[in-house]
Amino acid sequence: MKAVRVHEYGKPPSIDDVPEPTISGPLDIIVKIDAAGLCRTDLHIIDGQWASRSGVTLPYILGHENAGTVVEVGSAVTTLEPGDAVILHPNITCGLCPACRRGDDVHCENKSFPGLDRDGGMAEYLLTSARSAVTLGEGVLPMHVAALADAGLTAHHAVRKAVPLLPATARAVIIGLGGLGHIGLQCALALTGAEVIALDRNEEVLHKAEVLGAHRRIRYDDNAVAAVLDATDGKGAEVVFDFVGEYGTEAAGIAMTRDGGFYFVIGYGGKVEAETHEMISREISMVGNLVGSYTDLLELMALTERGQVTLSTKTYPLTRALDAISDLEAGRLPGTRAILLPAA
Amino acid sequence: MKAVRVHEYGKPPSIDDVPEPTISGPLDIIVKIDAAGLCRTDLHIIDGQWASRSGVTLPYILGHENAGTVVEVGSAVTTLEPGDAVILHPNITCGLCPACRRGDDVHCENKSFPGLDRDGGMAEYLLTSARSAVTLGEGVLPMHVAALADAGLTAHHAVRKAVPLLPATARAVIIGLGGLGHIGLQCALALTGAEVIALDRNEEVLHKAEVLGAHRRIRYDDNAVAAVLDATDGKGAEVVFDFVGEYGTEAAGIAMTRDGGFYFVIGYGGKVEAETHEMISREISMVGNLVGSYTDLLELMALTERGQVTLSTKTYPLTRALDAISDLEAGRLPGTRAILLPAA
Amino acid sequence: MKAVRVHEYGKPPSIDDVPEPTISGPLDIIVKIDAAGLCRTDLHIIDGQWASRSGVTLPYILGHENAGTVVEVGSAVTTLEPGDAVILHPNITCGLCPACRRGDDVHCENKSFPGLDRDGGMAEYLLTSARSAVTLGEGVLPMHVAALADAGLTAHHAVRKAVPLLPATARAVIIGLGGLGHIGLQCALALTGAEVIALDRNEEVLHKAEVLGAHRRIRYDDNAVAAVLDATDGKGAEVVFDFVGEYGTEAAGIAMTRDGGFYFVIGYGGKVEAETHEMISREISMVGNLVGSYTDLLELMALTERGQVTLSTKTYPLTRALDAISDLEAGRLPGTRAILLPAA
Amino acid sequence: MKAVRVHEYGKPPSIDDVPEPTISGPLDIIVKIDAAGLCRTDLHIIDGQWASRSGVTLPYILGHENAGTVVEVGSAVTTLEPGDAVILHPNITCGLCPACRRGDDVHCENKSFPGLDRDGGMAEYLLTSARSAVTLGEGVLPMHVAALADAGLTAHHAVRKAVPLLPATARAVIIGLGGLGHIGLQCALALTGAEVIALDRNEEVLHKAEVLGAHRRIRYDDNAVAAVLDATDGKGAEVVFDFVGEYGTEAAGIAMTRDGGFYFVIGYGGKVEAETHEMISREISMVGNLVGSYTDLLELMALTERGQVTLSTKTYPLTRALDAISDLEAGRLPGTRAILLPAA
Repeated sequence: MKAVRVHEYGKPPSIDDVPEPTISGPLDIIVKIDAAGLCRTDLHIIDGQWASRSGVTLPYILGHENAGTVVEVGSAVTTLEPGDAVILHPNITCGLCPACRRGDDVHCENKSFPGLDRDGGMAEYLLTSARSAVTLGEGVLPMHVAALADAGLTAHHAVRKAVPLLPATARAVIIGLGGLGHIGLQCALALTGAEVIALDRNEEVLHKAEVLGAHRRIRYDDNAVAAVLDATDGKGAEVVFDFVGEYGTEAAGIAMTRDGGFYFVIGYGGKVEAETHEMISREISMVGNLVGSYTDLLELMALTERGQVTLSTKTYPLTRALDAISDLEAGRLPGTRAILLPAA
Repeated sequence: MKAVRVHEYGKPPSIDDVPEPTISGPLDIIVKIDAAGLCRTDLHIIDGQWASRSGVTLPYILGHENAGTVVEVGSAVTTLEPGDAVILHPNITCGLCPACRRGDDVHCENKSFPGLDRDGGMAEYLLTSARSAVTLGEGVLPMHVAALADAGLTAHHAVRKAVPLLPATARAVIIGLGGLGHIGLQCALALTGAEVIALDRNEEVLHKAEVLGAHRRIRYDDNAVAAVLDATDGKGAEVVFDFVGEYGTEAAGIAMTRDGGFYFVIGYGGKVEAETHEMISREISMVGNLVGSYTDLLELMALTERGQVTLSTKTYPLTRALDAISDLEAGRLPGTRAILLPAA
Repeated sequence: MKAVRVHEYGKPPSIDDVPEPTISGPLDIIVKIDAAGLCRTDLHIIDGQWASRSGVTLPYILGHENAGTVVEVGSAVTTLEPGDAVILHPNITCGLCPACRRGDDVHCENKSFPGLDRDGGMAEYLLTSARSAVTLGEGVLPMHVAALADAGLTAHHAVRKAVPLLPATARAVIIGLGGLGHIGLQCALALTGAEVIALDRNEEVLHKAEVLGAHRRIRYDDNAVAAVLDATDGKGAEVVFDFVGEYGTEAAGIAMTRDGGFYFVIGYGGKVEAETHEMISREISMVGNLVGSYTDLLELMALTERGQVTLSTKTYPLTRALDAISDLEAGRLPGTRAILLPAA
Repeated sequence: MKAVRVHEYGKPPSIDDVPEPTISGPLDIIVKIDAAGLCRTDLHIIDGQWASRSGVTLPYILGHENAGTVVEVGSAVTTLEPGDAVILHPNITCGLCPACRRGDDVHCENKSFPGLDRDGGMAEYLLTSARSAVTLGEGVLPMHVAALADAGLTAHHAVRKAVPLLPATARAVIIGLGGLGHIGLQCALALTGAEVIALDRNEEVLHKAEVLGAHRRIRYDDNAVAAVLDATDGKGAEVVFDFVGEYGTEAAGIAMTRDGGFYFVIGYGGKVEAETHEMISREISMVGNLVGSYTDLLELMALTERGQVTLSTKTYPLTRALDAISDLEAGRLPGTRAILLPAA
């Protein structure tokens, strides 16, 4: 089959012919990939930024945002059968460790991550686990949801954690309305009654946020903290979701957080710094957020089926993966996710 | 001033000329009533059903759903001044008992209830407490919100309690889409991502529910339990909100509740019965719901300001209160609240 | 192997020689039973009360409170190996349905229950799932914990659910300090700061409760409601745990519940009845409780390892199971659990 | 009356004769101070570290940990009468702002803080609010609890927030078992089932922690992170309570925190720093903690009445306040709180 593989860090991946994967374990499944999202993390992987952490042996197949059709299932799989359209949670989890048993499978002690530390889904077929598959509702196409598998799920998870903090009297600030942020916005509108304030450097992106339902838009610039305080009676927001996490949004995000409030960091690259005296006297918290659980993915798919979350995408045949990569690198996909279609 | 007073249980109230109330305590306020909601509970009060529970001395003024304009404030009032437009929480609470201190003021140990156990707001002026007043946002008129003070707040409170039980994968059934139920519907849509299923005997009311955003509508009849099970993969709903609470909805509501789920009772008149064996083997709970807290009223007003909750009303001059009462008794106000206007 | 089997409802079980079970599925395990608890539910099974609900084919082996030593594991088992001492959760769950995925495995859509709807553990060996086994800590013996697998886990689960309702300012009433209740008492003392009030008909049992740490003891008789109100400033308890659930404790328990409080029903046989008007005006809830989840069992074992939960037991060789059954039937085991030892 | 007043920052306070305070507002109360705790924050106030933040006009009276006997109450006070023994919450709050109304009075928009921004309790009498007073249970003496009013309440509050994170399977690390930490330890043991690991530089303090019930003790030194990881299967603790918050405990505390876990900062002086990448990939949170609410103080008093929290104290006559201050400065009060007695 065709597959997009990294051979050497720092060099572009290539489209290779490789053997199709085969089932070995009882919960294994083989999925024909109908759509695979391209993510900024893929660029970091190609650059080698994840090399030491993942420990993966080259060459291997990229792709951690996958959706497709089940073609074969292992002996113990009872929930799926060939022909089922599915979206795939990015983690393969054990189901037996304490974290899995309490539903917190993202902290599985034995997880692996196709496309990061083993062969991923930028290929015609993917070997994964029945535990990773969510069956798609009627009318939901793999190409419409693939990028929700990781990017969307991360945004959803942060919002889900914040739901108890966001009654309708509260304000949620969202910094960065790009690929993740615009999903976060839609989840915040769907799952909470809070007033949502969208911040971005890009006016066009802000306009899209407003169309999606953001209650206020504020241009992110040197005056952004003052503008948020001004919009919140001088007090700041109960929750600030930072989908950037670098270039100074860390300090700005904390400064926009109300006393007693929470700064949620989802984007990364920068550093959070705070005097313990400020954390205490203002009683503020800084909350890290990983990708969502399988249960979170079920919720995100329910929202998608009801049309409460939609994704802006541009499709490419799998064989044109390198074009998609250079479009992403060159900033030619603002607020849009590139989706690779192996069958195109 | 003019006031609607009960003189004898079982007889219609009369419109009397009575002295205006005066301030005595430091947190007292006098509110010029701009709008007073008429509620089915008022009919029960007139009938005498609340006589022994309230212990009130006749004659007294009806009216527990009040909104208006502050005209005078006590010596310790720091949050209001004459001219402020306000909606009034139906309880006057002490602010000092343990329940008040934890924000659970509905269970105040020293509360009173204007219109039930002391003079209410179907009058030109009402004496209440600064602790009961929520200032209205710009553009929100007392006549648009008065009926949210009790009926709406009760519906909101039940939904607010259920938020942690209602992710987007869950189903909420609402039985009875009348005065309270249609507010509950709007709150469920605003505060949760759950699929909402509306049940009512009346097709026109169901149609309105659909317009307000209900995801499904089911006619409430002898087949309703089967229809709900059919709409929920045979499992029932995670939460059933029963805004009727009599005529058999109690048993039907429990039968529509999923294993592990919650039956919320808001309407009253009937009786809940369940074998302990069923409660345990299905792990179901039955949850009673009173009116909301002051904090709940803040949230409901935030939703109202943003247009996420609206109320269908018909207005009457205060002097035509008896017409409003007979319209309500005769069923001529389906899904609509009667609002008395002292200044009209 | 030897096994205690029911051949005909209404007749005593017999000790039979049956083939040892064998592994078929990838997560199957075979456990040599070191200790099997005898439970009142076993008496109900023998009587035939569960016949229609379980649908089991006779003859079959009793026993749903099991602990022992792993002797063989299926091909996909990674968490256990032969020689491990384990306690066995009473459910065999699928691990793949939405309930399992969120950690709520007690509501697994595909669960089975050894000793109820398939062969149980009153035998030398039991076939179950790796998903059901919790490895015992050092120094914890199967015979000390077997009866925690179901009875103890049910009591723990109810208390765990009530933790958010029980700050140190609250009162928890426990009705019935027998096999389940005395575990519930220990869990309430370990997991909450609440004042715990123990109620039982039996003075000796009350004395034991006091030794275990109950803050107050009240004799359960016709005066019990008044006595609880007297001990709680006339207000009742925030949470009432009813481990009896019949003979009138249902109504008494609700009457002991404070306004805004919760009546937890764990014991069964009777019926809960409440006017919707009372439920609403007092804002009380009635909460059903099933056995705990796997995660609950992990917590109960942690408490047991630290000596915060202990169980009073009397042991019998498996071959004397009928003696244990008649001791239990005759009331000769007050506050003590009968434990069958296959190796004795 | 005698009072300990600051006249100039950087110089010792003096014992002055000043007029007794008088009541002006309806919720005012005058309390005869029976015991006033001396706190490290008092040293910082004397040094001038709080000068700009508090904006107080010198001279003024120190003392924010106060307990005593009510001698006079304002016109609207219904919950107290002269002769009542009380402990005083350190904040005077308005009771009317949204934060007060939801029970979160520590974030009152109009709060003041006797002993910090107005006259405090190191005097014979204190003017405060009825909203700040908690009546002491029988047998609880002001001198035994005064230091719980601020130091103890801060420790309690952090633990109370962490209760949902600390089932019996979890580990809580406490860094620093001094004045606050040893109360935090007792609260963690009373309110959660978690395993508690005590860390301190001082072996004697660690020994006391063990006597109070800590499950493990680890000497806090350069090897402390490794030792905690070793004690937690290499994973760290679900919650780390840092009662030091400077000298490197910030980084060490974060390193001891398990993936998915929470670092609670209570002590202050240092700085929290974390790469956003680490916060996200480990999904860790850093939580600031202020003093507890009035409701928290009710809970702390309930624990104290039942003997679950006790405090080590050394008493001084108020007139020897300067001796107490120099003992505290010189480190002659390890793990013990100095209490000033105006009547001695």
